[in-house]
Amino acid sequence: MDFSRYICRKNFNKMTQRTEIASLGEFGLIERLSKDIKHYHKSTVKGIGDDAAVVDMGDKFLLISTDMLLEGIHFDLSYTPLKHLGYKAIAVNVSDIAAMNGTPTQITVGIALSNRFSLEAVEEIYMGMRLACEDYKVDLVGGDTTAAISGLILSITVLGTVAKDKIVYRNTAKKGDILCVTGDLGGAYLGLQALTREKQVFVANPEMQPELDGMDYIIERQLKPQARLDIIHELADLGIVPTSMIDISDGLASEIMHICKQSGVGAVLYEDKLPIDQQSYDAAINHFQLSPITCALNGGEDYELLFTISQENYEKIKQHDQISTIGYITDADKKVALVMRNGTTVAVQAQGWKHF
Amino acid sequence: MDFSRYICRKNFNKMTQRTEIASLGEFGLIERLSKDIKHYHKSTVKGIGDDAAVVDMGDKFLLISTDMLLEGIHFDLSYTPLKHLGYKAIAVNVSDIAAMNGTPTQITVGIALSNRFSLEAVEEIYMGMRLACEDYKVDLVGGDTTAAISGLILSITVLGTVAKDKIVYRNTAKKGDILCVTGDLGGAYLGLQALTREKQVFVANPEMQPELDGMDYIIERQLKPQARLDIIHELADLGIVPTSMIDISDGLASEIMHICKQSGVGAVLYEDKLPIDQQSYDAAINHFQLSPITCALNGGEDYELLFTISQENYEKIKQHDQISTIGYITDADKKVALVMRNGTTVAVQAQGWKHF
Repeated sequence: MDFSRYICRKNFNKMTQRTEIASLGEFGLIERLSKDIKHYHKSTVKGIGDDAAVVDMGDKFLLISTDMLLEGIHFDLSYTPLKHLGYKAIAVNVSDIAAMNGTPTQITVGIALSNRFSLEAVEEIYMGMRLACEDYKVDLVGGDTTAAISGLILSITVLGTVAKDKIVYRNTAKKGDILCVTGDLGGAYLGLQALTREKQVFVANPEMQPELDGMDYIIERQLKPQARLDIIHELADLGIVPTSMIDISDGLASEIMHICKQSGVGAVLYEDKLPIDQQSYDAAINHFQLSPITCALNGGEDYELLFTISQENYEKIKQHDQISTIGYITDADKKVALVMRNGTTVAVQAQGWKHF
Repeated sequence: MDFSRYICRKNFNKMTQRTEIASLGEFGLIERLSKDIKHYHKSTVKGIGDDAAVVDMGDKFLLISTDMLLEGIHFDLSYTPLKHLGYKAIAVNVSDIAAMNGTPTQITVGIALSNRFSLEAVEEIYMGMRLACEDYKVDLVGGDTTAAISGLILSITVLGTVAKDKIVYRNTAKKGDILCVTGDLGGAYLGLQALTREKQVFVANPEMQPELDGMDYIIERQLKPQARLDIIHELADLGIVPTSMIDISDGLASEIMHICKQSGVGAVLYEDKLPIDQQSYDAAINHFQLSPITCALNGGEDYELLFTISQENYEKIKQHDQISTIGYITDADKKVALVMRNGTTVAVQAQGWKHF
């Protein structure tokens, strides 16, 4: 390393060359940063590129995933109760372990906060975390607490385990496999719309009562998402190992694209098969003038699981009320196609979330 | 959970009760938050309370530690080259694994940054991280990248392993054990003084040349600390398992207090045994009018190792040029006493770092 200049005057000014991160996007940035990374341990089975990294522990695989949640970027405390925030921070990390067909075991929590936050506020966050740890049976084993200049930042790392012959990656979908999704889609995004609108009303007139009748489901989807560990256990009971899997954090379209791109396949999905809750459907149409299908395809944060299974397993899941079969895997040259109710076919675009 | 009020009007206002976190301090906060935590997995051997958490992996222990580094709290980019920042972020985490007598294996990196940072800036940080990963043979296996409203935040989680009969905790020092410390102390703190002073000069007059002659060592100690994995390997070669160990991130005094409090012992240390580099000594006296001993006791960020060994192992390390024996462990009622050069004894106070 070059220690010839300790005072980095160039940090005060612009660097010689400047490429905006926004021009690459999050996925482009990750691709760029991970390309020169070398591994030194043969225990490292999988690095960057899936829901969790995979480490060989002898008789099983260890899974590791990490997520940062920043106030003003990932959450707005004017409508997010601190307890819910703590719960959600754990749940979304557990979801990454579920997406590898694993079971979460331990978690570490980094928390940075400005002096705007009192001890009571931090205890609210931890109360939500403890509830989630109880629901998902995960042990909070460590962390870091520090001051921040402004706002609240949570950084969670979750560990999990999975039997070596049961691990499921993103890049192993095969032509002919059936595309499945758990629960229903678009609700979390619509809940966010409801909360954002309500905040605007409140800011304009703090005396107004919130108008959230009939929105309890979509708001719960946004504020307190669940990791679908229940499905992981049920698939195990049914003797099914998915051929590929990912969790839906950025929206169904974006996640299907990940599976297809990484597996070198295409997919066909059917509009009339996409699972949308009645309340989500009504809220989209009546309150927000949004297409329910667009919300299901591109709304993020549902934390449901998207997975593929071999056709031979179809009979085992076709009656499952929490699993919808929404399409099938094709050759790569077919890309990702959506068959509409009227029979026309459109190419699916991944919108996803753009933080940068 | 109570979903009766989705819009958290109380978040807009003060909460009913308000206890300032500053009134507890970092250690008080951690103690308060960790008291109600339950563990569900018998694989969880040790949670919060040491340099790393410990998980039973069958034939060995897995170690996990996490650290957040925030711009404006932990580093100042006006005098921290981004490459050095990346290097240091990895080194300080590796140091936590070393402090458990372990070897680091994998690391995950969370990075949040505002649009002030270009792709080139992020690549500088990663270049430093890759160098540290090479030096310590640790695999960067995952992470998270996200936008921040302001500043740069790094969140690192490191994994390591250690044989079950070789793990070393903080709380196992015994009366009569010899207190040892690696390398030398106070340099990183004095390097920070030099850089802070130089920044003030620069802000006042950007044309001034930096006056850092004879300060290269202390500046390197601040900007590019090393994790003492070399000592971990040498102790193994010597057949020594320390009876307790901790890394020096908050200052020698603070770390001795941790060992003594958690082990239920006291300690005596000798002023004339504290290892201080000549350049640190001269800089303290000549440039900053500081006591070198105070810098050694209370200056943070040296990332040396403080450990105790049984008396029977003394012969094996007494000639080691990177290990100083600085005192011994006593009964708890003796507290932590410093014997000065003139023969007087003073009680050691842990100053440590106060972020809150």
